[in-house]
Amino acid sequence: MPGRDAPAPDHLRSLIGAARDGDRGSVARLISLVERGGADATAAVAALHPHTGGASTIGITGAPGSGKSTLTSRLVARLRQEGHEVGVLAVDPTSPFTGGAILGDRIRMQDHAVDAGVFIRSMATRGHLGGLALATPQAVRVLDAAGKPWVILETVGVGQVEIAIASEADMTIVVVTPGWGDGVQAAKAGLLEIADVLVVNKADRPGVADTVHDLAGMLDLAGGGQAWRPPVVETVASEGRGIDELWDTVLAHHAFLRSDGLLETRRRARLRAELRAILLARLQVDLDERLDGERFEQVIERVASRELDPYAAADELVAVR
Amino acid sequence: MPGRDAPAPDHLRSLIGAARDGDRGSVARLISLVERGGADATAAVAALHPHTGGASTIGITGAPGSGKSTLTSRLVARLRQEGHEVGVLAVDPTSPFTGGAILGDRIRMQDHAVDAGVFIRSMATRGHLGGLALATPQAVRVLDAAGKPWVILETVGVGQVEIAIASEADMTIVVVTPGWGDGVQAAKAGLLEIADVLVVNKADRPGVADTVHDLAGMLDLAGGGQAWRPPVVETVASEGRGIDELWDTVLAHHAFLRSDGLLETRRRARLRAELRAILLARLQVDLDERLDGERFEQVIERVASRELDPYAAADELVAVR
Repeated sequence: MPGRDAPAPDHLRSLIGAARDGDRGSVARLISLVERGGADATAAVAALHPHTGGASTIGITGAPGSGKSTLTSRLVARLRQEGHEVGVLAVDPTSPFTGGAILGDRIRMQDHAVDAGVFIRSMATRGHLGGLALATPQAVRVLDAAGKPWVILETVGVGQVEIAIASEADMTIVVVTPGWGDGVQAAKAGLLEIADVLVVNKADRPGVADTVHDLAGMLDLAGGGQAWRPPVVETVASEGRGIDELWDTVLAHHAFLRSDGLLETRRRARLRAELRAILLARLQVDLDERLDGERFEQVIERVASRELDPYAAADELVAVR
Repeated sequence: MPGRDAPAPDHLRSLIGAARDGDRGSVARLISLVERGGADATAAVAALHPHTGGASTIGITGAPGSGKSTLTSRLVARLRQEGHEVGVLAVDPTSPFTGGAILGDRIRMQDHAVDAGVFIRSMATRGHLGGLALATPQAVRVLDAAGKPWVILETVGVGQVEIAIASEADMTIVVVTPGWGDGVQAAKAGLLEIADVLVVNKADRPGVADTVHDLAGMLDLAGGGQAWRPPVVETVASEGRGIDELWDTVLAHHAFLRSDGLLETRRRARLRAELRAILLARLQVDLDERLDGERFEQVIERVASRELDPYAAADELVAVR
């Protein structure tokens, strides 16, 4: 099978060693390696895995224009102020571009470009098998193994894929803006479901009180007897307002997660989902190999001529696997 | 297996007979049947399939607020003016509601509520296995078998799922509005890729010339030597302006599709995708059965303790299947 030759274990070991010693180039190369998938990625994940588990991860999601990037940048600055190193993965499933080349990435880099304690990377591998659902946890693993105590997963959009990715963190921050109350109820419910912390950004705009009230009402409806009620934090990220309060909230949730085994519960649920995704990706490869042949075309022909219906055709294709 | 008792063939035959005789209740019941999935759906599809192939399908997609629903309503009126019956499936993958109960549905119904020649149905089965990717072609099959010569698939949003669904038609209309040029380039490219016809709706607003120019530029970039260059039609759906031109364009594309075997090529590609989705859904059921047990939890435990990495864990789980 092409690409099945694993990289020399020595090479991988020295790459991981360099990444753990703080070499940014090695971190970047490792992320590229796990993003590409295949045997190289498998070998890298195997070598990285024993070094992981130390990073706390934060997912940040919200509608386009809610100021997520600015908020992320401020949160990174706050983490740096505390002396913590930070890794940031900016995930955009709608973009075909990955790596460090996209505009958003360059904008994000500006504030932290000369800070060796911050590693920022864009991911946008929508074409991949298993896609970002598989690539994101591996990239987090690289930053975790490289010793970043904090890793932020920022998603660019707010679709189902983005929500799924942002919720692949220990803690998820959902960013809204005043006027958000006008949005579609179902989409709001989906966001609220995954929120550990709610941020009303651009809180210097009109309507902030209504939005906070709206969120409180939805939280009242959702949460009877929860041990953690998502706090609502008002920020003006562009001016740095509310960031201290957000940081305190992050720390409070961090302590809460560790207090009652919830962190381990969440991480195990993520491992289950990841394992399922790995197995599903393999099944899809098998399936596509089976569906690439003369026999499949003959069955399609019979469905097209109405001799077979699609479900009977599926039965036939499975019977001769 | 629960739900594996197929409905009595006689009952199905009479339901399909009534649907083909124009009974709306039977059409609705058949769609509910295929939406629910399981053995009932399989039996219904088998019974419907021989009666299909006569319907021409149009997908309509575009950003929220682009006026898709109004445009769809106008197009339905135009089709009725020509004496054609029409089926409309309004698909919203972000909504948990399905059937005829949602607000959007009632709004859409208003113009055509008393017209027996129009059948409108909302679909929003995001929770389903295989989801709308599987349910939509089956619902189209019901309307096709019921003798609707035209079926419109209107999607509410513009995410990847919606684009995929709208492109599951013989012809796809993409609706934009003036000012669309300010959007994200990648998202635009994804929409343009599937467009057979481009509509600039709300063409009484400022910026329409820029938008038309922008689209023409993107089409120039995309299409060297294509047999069909997507026409750009300006409409003001709220006033019915441009609908005649849109209808002429639909007919022109309709004729084009039939002229060189392209229609059959497209329909076969859709059948391939549908068969793949059916098989994949079955594999997922098998997978989830395998992942629901003590052995899986033991493997997760070993991954959590860093004894196994996720890919090695996947190998183990596959080995003992």
